[in-house]
Amino acid sequence: MSKDLYQRGEEIRREVLGEEYVRNSAANTDAFSEPMRSFAIRNLWGEVWDRPGLDRRSRSLINLAMLAAMDRPAELKIHLRGALNNGVTRQEIAEVFLQVALYCGVPAGSEATRTAKQFLAEYDAEQAAAR
Amino acid sequence: MSKDLYQRGEEIRREVLGEEYVRNSAANTDAFSEPMRSFAIRNLWGEVWDRPGLDRRSRSLINLAMLAAMDRPAELKIHLRGALNNGVTRQEIAEVFLQVALYCGVPAGSEATRTAKQFLAEYDAEQAAAR
Amino acid sequence: MSKDLYQRGEEIRREVLGEEYVRNSAANTDAFSEPMRSFAIRNLWGEVWDRPGLDRRSRSLINLAMLAAMDRPAELKIHLRGALNNGVTRQEIAEVFLQVALYCGVPAGSEATRTAKQFLAEYDAEQAAAR
Amino acid sequence: MSKDLYQRGEEIRREVLGEEYVRNSAANTDAFSEPMRSFAIRNLWGEVWDRPGLDRRSRSLINLAMLAAMDRPAELKIHLRGALNNGVTRQEIAEVFLQVALYCGVPAGSEATRTAKQFLAEYDAEQAAAR
Amino acid sequence: MSKDLYQRGEEIRREVLGEEYVRNSAANTDAFSEPMRSFAIRNLWGEVWDRPGLDRRSRSLINLAMLAAMDRPAELKIHLRGALNNGVTRQEIAEVFLQVALYCGVPAGSEATRTAKQFLAEYDAEQAAAR
Amino acid sequence: MSKDLYQRGEEIRREVLGEEYVRNSAANTDAFSEPMRSFAIRNLWGEVWDRPGLDRRSRSLINLAMLAAMDRPAELKIHLRGALNNGVTRQEIAEVFLQVALYCGVPAGSEATRTAKQFLAEYDAEQAAAR
Repeated sequence: MSKDLYQRGEEIRREVLGEEYVRNSAANTDAFSEPMRSFAIRNLWGEVWDRPGLDRRSRSLINLAMLAAMDRPAELKIHLRGALNNGVTRQEIAEVFLQVALYCGVPAGSEATRTAKQFLAEYDAEQAAAR
Repeated sequence: MSKDLYQRGEEIRREVLGEEYVRNSAANTDAFSEPMRSFAIRNLWGEVWDRPGLDRRSRSLINLAMLAAMDRPAELKIHLRGALNNGVTRQEIAEVFLQVALYCGVPAGSEATRTAKQFLAEYDAEQAAAR
Repeated sequence: MSKDLYQRGEEIRREVLGEEYVRNSAANTDAFSEPMRSFAIRNLWGEVWDRPGLDRRSRSLINLAMLAAMDRPAELKIHLRGALNNGVTRQEIAEVFLQVALYCGVPAGSEATRTAKQFLAEYDAEQAAAR
Repeated sequence: MSKDLYQRGEEIRREVLGEEYVRNSAANTDAFSEPMRSFAIRNLWGEVWDRPGLDRRSRSLINLAMLAAMDRPAELKIHLRGALNNGVTRQEIAEVFLQVALYCGVPAGSEATRTAKQFLAEYDAEQAAAR
Repeated sequence: MSKDLYQRGEEIRREVLGEEYVRNSAANTDAFSEPMRSFAIRNLWGEVWDRPGLDRRSRSLINLAMLAAMDRPAELKIHLRGALNNGVTRQEIAEVFLQVALYCGVPAGSEATRTAKQFLAEYDAEQAAAR
Repeated sequence: MSKDLYQRGEEIRREVLGEEYVRNSAANTDAFSEPMRSFAIRNLWGEVWDRPGLDRRSRSLINLAMLAAMDRPAELKIHLRGALNNGVTRQEIAEVFLQVALYCGVPAGSEATRTAKQFLAEYDAEQAAAR
């Protein structure tokens, strides 16, 4: 049932991205954007991220690579947070983007590195503020 | 020294892709394509694949995702072989391409699945013949 | 319930692509590719193509444009068949690809035109044989 | 004659994008950017948009899909305005981007939805101010 | 006048791609593909390739890079022929694709190198046969 | 030896992009981004840009085309500066982007033109301030 997929999606999204991220996202939706948001929750989070065949750390690594390859900095920041929560280290993040540089071009790798550097500074400030 | 990078690259390439693949590739080069081939060996295999910061299984997973995202079936077949050698299972390969379908579009995911299905049949025939 | 989405997807797919296409596709699947096939049926056909907010002719037109833009000739042929079944004329198909040429580059538009020319010849032969 | 194509292009552009948009665009050009601007007016607007083989509503729909697929938010805003003027409804716009999400990846669909949500707020404010 | 652009386009195309290529292309067109073909001749060859602001050798070099970046092997072969006719050497072609490898990813550069290697063999056979 | 590639890379980068650009880039790096920065200096600048087979003006032209095609405005600004230093004129830059418009789509060409127009204004202000 799709309602179940939605609820399962919300749970996994909360585990991967954190309570606060999920709360802000729900507050930002409206009638125009709601179908897209609930589609993503059901299908990305409730269906793909819940499948048992691949561990979450691996799912995070391939998302970093794909989002860098496709030049999606806003989504990349979301999944950098998810990657840290799923146990990917900062050094591993840097390595993923070096590999992106070789396979998708140096501009793809270096812009992802720049986005990550900026995200990590924001994340560290947020963690410091929460303490 | 670049000659060392080249030799190191050849070693890693042989470990990941197998003796036979490397022998065929060397036989196919000529004066026109040699600079690209030696560049790839030094920089991809000798430099990036040799870096200690990310394990080979993870490097294989992100390559499968990037090559599917960028629609490069010929390179994808090479790295499907590498992925099997680096311990990625067939089920994990199928999962990577489902995730590609969501993040890069269903055509990207389903064409990669088709390429992999074809590669796996060739690979199984080759393994059977070698026995 | 996902089983319902799957059944609804199969119905719509049969309406858009025809009985024979759907039969061949089912015959070509195996354990490796089945998760992708059923995902596409549930989510593309059972969910997106069933939504009432946009008519099928319009969905076909935008698919032709996206698949030409992303250079996916195999999927483009599938949706050229769907477009004819959904009432898009041959002249309209040619116009879509001219617009693709301007917005995504002449190579994208002219390769889609070549793919469509080839598909239409196959389709006409198939129709003639069926008579 | 190219001057005719240019004049015809300006007329159609004015019909699709509105008087004010066209006036601002002319004011922003200079010797460096003028060849590109007049090329686009002649070839996009004077030639492709004037062709009779496909109605303007359909041309708007496929432009929304292509610009979302190719991640061009600045051009997307221009053609969201054109789409509204050509009779595409807000619900149809949301549906186009859901279809983009499936065929080009959820990040493409959700970033286009975000761009459109922002554009529609600006557009509504502009309409309210004009009253 | 568009007819003039078409005639000028045919002349330049003949100069860049050769008499035989142009003859074959005209023989392969039909009612479906004719609008695209004449659009490309008028706008690509009659307008852009005729502009005085950039020499033909430079236009060939950037076309090789763009077509490799966008993975368009069929168009790339056409412009490899044009590049040789415009004075680009084989060594320069190899260098362009090495630069593509760095800026657009090694798979882009190495697949373009493979396409070019194959084209050059065909071209040499054709030249030998013509003697 | 890689240290030599790095030093050679820094020299060429300084020649192409100027002393000040290189100084700012070094000041902005940290432990996270340093591997990417030194990789780019060794491999892009120390290896590819140092190869004798293609002149620097040609390398600049193809970089402008590739970066416009791949929609990388931040990198494009860096290489617009390099292009001016390597003798590419402003008119030639405008011509490259017109050709991009035809081969990669008008949005790619017109956004690159907009980026260049903005860069040239900044560059002229910077030159005026330095006098």
